[in-house]
Amino acid sequence: IGTPRFKDWRIYEMTPAGVAIGLSYTRLGGSLLYIEAIDTASGKGSLKTTGRLGQVMTESTDIAYSFAKGYLKTIQAANRFFETASIHLHFPEGASSKEGPSAGCAIVTALLSLAMNIPVSEKLAMTGEITLTGKVLAVGGIREKVMAARQGNMKTVILPAGNKSDWEELDDCVKDGMRGIFVKEYSEVFQVAFPSIRLERKSPKK
Amino acid sequence: IGTPRFKDWRIYEMTPAGVAIGLSYTRLGGSLLYIEAIDTASGKGSLKTTGRLGQVMTESTDIAYSFAKGYLKTIQAANRFFETASIHLHFPEGASSKEGPSAGCAIVTALLSLAMNIPVSEKLAMTGEITLTGKVLAVGGIREKVMAARQGNMKTVILPAGNKSDWEELDDCVKDGMRGIFVKEYSEVFQVAFPSIRLERKSPKK
Amino acid sequence: IGTPRFKDWRIYEMTPAGVAIGLSYTRLGGSLLYIEAIDTASGKGSLKTTGRLGQVMTESTDIAYSFAKGYLKTIQAANRFFETASIHLHFPEGASSKEGPSAGCAIVTALLSLAMNIPVSEKLAMTGEITLTGKVLAVGGIREKVMAARQGNMKTVILPAGNKSDWEELDDCVKDGMRGIFVKEYSEVFQVAFPSIRLERKSPKK
Repeated sequence: IGTPRFKDWRIYEMTPAGVAIGLSYTRLGGSLLYIEAIDTASGKGSLKTTGRLGQVMTESTDIAYSFAKGYLKTIQAANRFFETASIHLHFPEGASSKEGPSAGCAIVTALLSLAMNIPVSEKLAMTGEITLTGKVLAVGGIREKVMAARQGNMKTVILPAGNKSDWEELDDCVKDGMRGIFVKEYSEVFQVAFPSIRLERKSPKK
Repeated sequence: IGTPRFKDWRIYEMTPAGVAIGLSYTRLGGSLLYIEAIDTASGKGSLKTTGRLGQVMTESTDIAYSFAKGYLKTIQAANRFFETASIHLHFPEGASSKEGPSAGCAIVTALLSLAMNIPVSEKLAMTGEITLTGKVLAVGGIREKVMAARQGNMKTVILPAGNKSDWEELDDCVKDGMRGIFVKEYSEVFQVAFPSIRLERKSPKK
Repeated sequence: IGTPRFKDWRIYEMTPAGVAIGLSYTRLGGSLLYIEAIDTASGKGSLKTTGRLGQVMTESTDIAYSFAKGYLKTIQAANRFFETASIHLHFPEGASSKEGPSAGCAIVTALLSLAMNIPVSEKLAMTGEITLTGKVLAVGGIREKVMAARQGNMKTVILPAGNKSDWEELDDCVKDGMRGIFVKEYSEVFQVAFPSIRLERKSPKK
């Protein structure tokens, strides 16, 4: 009860396109938060979610979806995936309730991975609230999340710039072997998650 | 009250296409969980559920439906069943409430059985949470579920690989005469449930 | 607990078109309230909101949307943005609940900024309830809001004329370096927020 508990349930050895890894935490400790997105049918463009999401997290998926649709246009103007895809977004495990805005960046990443059909590294985890224009806001539970990332064998963790001091306060043994990357805008997340895509620097939105 | 109670209510001697057998458990013990799927009308493709499902189980049927639609394409590319079927999914008995994600694999199996019009063996039961990309996650109540499967005269039980240790801890008399099969991906369930369909090993999703 | 707490989380160094800055306050103090509006798709004209809005604030976005649609016609008769835009309006941070009508003017401003594709100064904040015909009504928490505006480095604050006495009661040190502008109608807000657009004085609505 007094000691944090870490769940290391790596579902994926390789993550397919449409899957990104977030980080979550409760009073019991942190854990990897897998995000799965698939296209279920051709239609008029829609998003449905499962995984016992609370209100804030449901809104967070809406925000991520709205942002991802606009952002894709700045990256691949000809890609019309979101116009016809009926996307189903799921957060295993299905029985554990999930809440909060901190998976925003990871949800955007899962959606863009699906839309571009490019997998994200299975060694990359990220946390950070996203706003509608792509700003990345600070979140809570950095310590627990970083510990979970390490337990989950992540090599790189993307964190909001506003959490840099939280990272710096962590013991070296906690973050040993992991690289922390601090971002203010989603475009910086994108460059790490999809290094094969060269961003032409006309900076989509400020 | 102190002793587990087992319900052996085999509804089916032979299971028609569209029916699969899951396993459930409560504090009172385990039981077979029949899953019935029928096509009620030609339309634009929809799913409705009955059987006093809780929120997690309702979401679980959504996940299974989304996964089954995509998976069928990898098995029978020409099969357009899900595009027009108005599927009704029911979990008898109607008066008993049901909850949890552990029927995921069995729901997928019932849906695919209906879509391909191939019955599943009435001696096969299965338990396991499914994710949107077909990963099979560990579940609870293995002991009660295996006892119920035996009471229900099952010959084969499919379980998540993550529950292998639970199976190994069971007394031999509990699992006597039954084969346990451990799986990480739904494709492994599929091979057991539909042995007549040869999977071409282009592994649908990793 | 006894001392007001101010959050200075300036998300934007530069605000893009579609973003306006309101002011909010709770018993813990005031803060900047960013309002983000983006167009998510071409369609038939719709508004969706996120950010844990209470009922009054949700209605306030409806009022602002209705007013902005009519007001745009008086400013740019040929601008058909609202007829096809699927607008998503978000109020970061996603986890903090927001309530009340006092963001009305700022919401209208965010919507018009998006519709005209003209950014609003990142040094301008505003508070004030809006009515359906563009009247600006007095609001509460002026002291906390002005302090938050100053903490957030705002240069200009638009306030309802009905709050002029609240402003005058404030210590000079609180409002030092900031200009307070008092308005009765939204057209007066518009002239400050969009100085590049010359209002032809046929006074849109009385």
